[in-house]
Amino acid sequence: MSQDKEELLGLKFRKDKEFPDWYNELVLKSQLAEYAPVKGCMTIRPLGYAIWENIQSAFDKMIKESGHQNAYFPFFIPERFLKKEAEHFEGFSPELAYVATGTDEDKGEKYILRPTSETIMYDTFSRWIRSWRDLPLKINQWCNIVRWETKVTRLFLRTKEFLWQEGHTAHATSLEAEEEALYISGLYKKLMEDYLSIPVYVGKKSEREKFPGALYTITHEAMMPSGRALQMGTSHHLGQNFSRPFRIRFRDKDEKEKYVWQTSWGISTRLLGAIVMVHGDDNGLVLPPKLAPVQVVVVPIIFEKNKRKVISKAESIAKKLDKFRVHADLREEYSAGWKFNEWEMKGVPIRLEIGPNDIKKKQAILVRRDTGEKIPTKETKLLKTVQLTLEQIQKNMLTRARKFLKQSTKDAKTYDGLKELIKDGKMARINWCGDPGCENKINEETTATIRLIPLKKEKAFGKCAVCEKKTKDVVYVAKAY
Amino acid sequence: MSQDKEELLGLKFRKDKEFPDWYNELVLKSQLAEYAPVKGCMTIRPLGYAIWENIQSAFDKMIKESGHQNAYFPFFIPERFLKKEAEHFEGFSPELAYVATGTDEDKGEKYILRPTSETIMYDTFSRWIRSWRDLPLKINQWCNIVRWETKVTRLFLRTKEFLWQEGHTAHATSLEAEEEALYISGLYKKLMEDYLSIPVYVGKKSEREKFPGALYTITHEAMMPSGRALQMGTSHHLGQNFSRPFRIRFRDKDEKEKYVWQTSWGISTRLLGAIVMVHGDDNGLVLPPKLAPVQVVVVPIIFEKNKRKVISKAESIAKKLDKFRVHADLREEYSAGWKFNEWEMKGVPIRLEIGPNDIKKKQAILVRRDTGEKIPTKETKLLKTVQLTLEQIQKNMLTRARKFLKQSTKDAKTYDGLKELIKDGKMARINWCGDPGCENKINEETTATIRLIPLKKEKAFGKCAVCEKKTKDVVYVAKAY
Repeated sequence: MSQDKEELLGLKFRKDKEFPDWYNELVLKSQLAEYAPVKGCMTIRPLGYAIWENIQSAFDKMIKESGHQNAYFPFFIPERFLKKEAEHFEGFSPELAYVATGTDEDKGEKYILRPTSETIMYDTFSRWIRSWRDLPLKINQWCNIVRWETKVTRLFLRTKEFLWQEGHTAHATSLEAEEEALYISGLYKKLMEDYLSIPVYVGKKSEREKFPGALYTITHEAMMPSGRALQMGTSHHLGQNFSRPFRIRFRDKDEKEKYVWQTSWGISTRLLGAIVMVHGDDNGLVLPPKLAPVQVVVVPIIFEKNKRKVISKAESIAKKLDKFRVHADLREEYSAGWKFNEWEMKGVPIRLEIGPNDIKKKQAILVRRDTGEKIPTKETKLLKTVQLTLEQIQKNMLTRARKFLKQSTKDAKTYDGLKELIKDGKMARINWCGDPGCENKINEETTATIRLIPLKKEKAFGKCAVCEKKTKDVVYVAKAY
Repeated sequence: MSQDKEELLGLKFRKDKEFPDWYNELVLKSQLAEYAPVKGCMTIRPLGYAIWENIQSAFDKMIKESGHQNAYFPFFIPERFLKKEAEHFEGFSPELAYVATGTDEDKGEKYILRPTSETIMYDTFSRWIRSWRDLPLKINQWCNIVRWETKVTRLFLRTKEFLWQEGHTAHATSLEAEEEALYISGLYKKLMEDYLSIPVYVGKKSEREKFPGALYTITHEAMMPSGRALQMGTSHHLGQNFSRPFRIRFRDKDEKEKYVWQTSWGISTRLLGAIVMVHGDDNGLVLPPKLAPVQVVVVPIIFEKNKRKVISKAESIAKKLDKFRVHADLREEYSAGWKFNEWEMKGVPIRLEIGPNDIKKKQAILVRRDTGEKIPTKETKLLKTVQLTLEQIQKNMLTRARKFLKQSTKDAKTYDGLKELIKDGKMARINWCGDPGCENKINEETTATIRLIPLKKEKAFGKCAVCEKKTKDVVYVAKAY
């Protein structure tokens, strides 16, 4: 879509100075998404949706390879289903939206627009599962979700509707459910680090922060340059908390009737927000090559007298590179400089510039989006160099983000130290005695929350940062989105 | 999922005698879909969803290759948007579902759960489109749709919620919009014939039957063995009917402000119903190879003494065929016969049986789902034979369906003849004067409707079948789902 030139020629806001405004401006100007004409909702534009499709395709492959199957359950959930698991209902109830219907057959039934699908799926699971032969049952659903948020909308991070996947599994034993929750956690970590180039801390949520209805929640937390943590995805061991009220039972090999053990897990379009925040810069998006809808853009530098020659060279180079997602920008109504800016704004990992001089030298100028580096590259080496450079960019983005995460994580031994770190926008490692009183105090006084209790136990380095009781536990604390 | 043996060992109802019951039983027993615990809704089970994914992937590729982009717009549409196009609102209004919300910021706004997205998208298009450079704009969306049906639910054919794609394009001229609507119609025909193996008639809807708000509607109609036509997908030229109320204007090359010309088009999970009805038989589903989630199932015939050998041969054959969607059914708790029935129920195009004798003869027995034919095939030829047989099955299914469509289509010169054909479950070709009065009369007296006015003009063979006025037009009339 065309824009007035000045609109696209850069960002007004600076990432290091005016982060929230910068984020918003970047999402809009890069045309990832925009505010919908419906309050609290967003429109995901083609660029944003194409990145989401690449995330979907990577993760969908992973779960299918491990025996999960996609299905689709109704968007409408009878309220009585949600009420069957009290903690679950209570947790979601501030954000529930209902259908207003008037038909006779719906009388006496209140329908909720799905905020998550545990209850509607598990009512069905209770009929699908009869025997140990039916286990494990591993179902996934890609769909839209409604949570009638009343807080301020943030594109990708908080909207009344968003897209996600939700996996729901049932197993014969608690151990198997635990293994599944961990297995998915491993896939999430792989997706986030190898595809999004965003490193995450993996750990359990505290009782206060866990998913309503879960036995426990494994979370994947990344640190944003705003000094806030972002929950990137969660994997829950549901225990028998749902199988009992929904009566999901199976006849085991020993002929006894048992309740199944369950997991659920999800990632959402919120991941797009993380990509913007972690990698974006003052010139626009920086997309990890594995997810970039366009990986290489070829821009001919057109002068009137050699127009055809340069354009046809750009075309032929794009064709040679067609094993990548390549685009030749041959528009003549825009200058090369304007195109450079536009594709930088849109985060394309590699730009190939081709001018008359380059044709003479049988080369193209390869420009890396992540570093800005300009690398004259012989045409004969282009295929290999592009391949290698895409891999390097993917890796370099992860390395940079790792460095940032490390720098953002600091230990605090005292409560004052903790408050200082939180004020400073850090992820604070502290010792915590496990008392919800101490946890609540942190939240009330700093607005930060315990983000996670690391899965791999970390050695304590002092006493509880709040009450100074002796403890062996380390937790991570930060403000969060 | 396990089922009691007797449940899966066949269908109680016969296709040629008790079609509606047969359809229902087949959808349920093949585990394509089932009634959801929400009235009027369905749950699409993994087998059904996997077929839908294959349809999506085939069609998504076609539209991306022709420059369409996916995006995602909100599920909630302000009622005032729908009301902007009076005919559109009136057409959909009996089936609209609203959100019941109570938050302050929503006051004064009534939100409709999208029955189709013209209005929410076009409000946005009016901001995206400014110049001729922004045209054509070609957007597609895969999503769920709500139409609060009060009629009896039919799995895949009529439910309160279903999945679909909706394409929405904007063009500089009416001609371009017309070409787009036709181009998509061509893709639909290709999808239906080359992938679903279901031949369709292509034509325009009458004024009475067109999409509410369209200039005209191109429809793709197939004939079901029940004697009813099924509308498989529609492509609409919207003219400027939406661009004017939504003020979607562009500055053209001549510097004049003009309203765009638009199209919209969609296919839905209803196509799954068509596959069941057209191809299914008394043993279960028959899936066209291009869409079958499992194309080849390998079933070892296991006797106690040679168990390992047969199983490992089945495994190695499956591995050799891994360029297809192949599954080796190695479960030992089910007999080979039971598995044959199960995979026939699920419509797998090719079954390979491997017993001790076959191993000796270095062969497998290839069984075609469409004909039941058993073809002993040398192991060395398996790869090639499977490839060819899948292609033959795909073609044969289309040929059979074409034959059925031809047999189901008959000419009627008189009104009595028309009534006879409709009663007989045929698609009746008649001459029609174009008068809505005659059209209404047909519908009132036979419940049939004019399904289409063929795109390629067909030569009239008499006078209007209703009023006997002279006319040159031929139309197709049938009862429909």
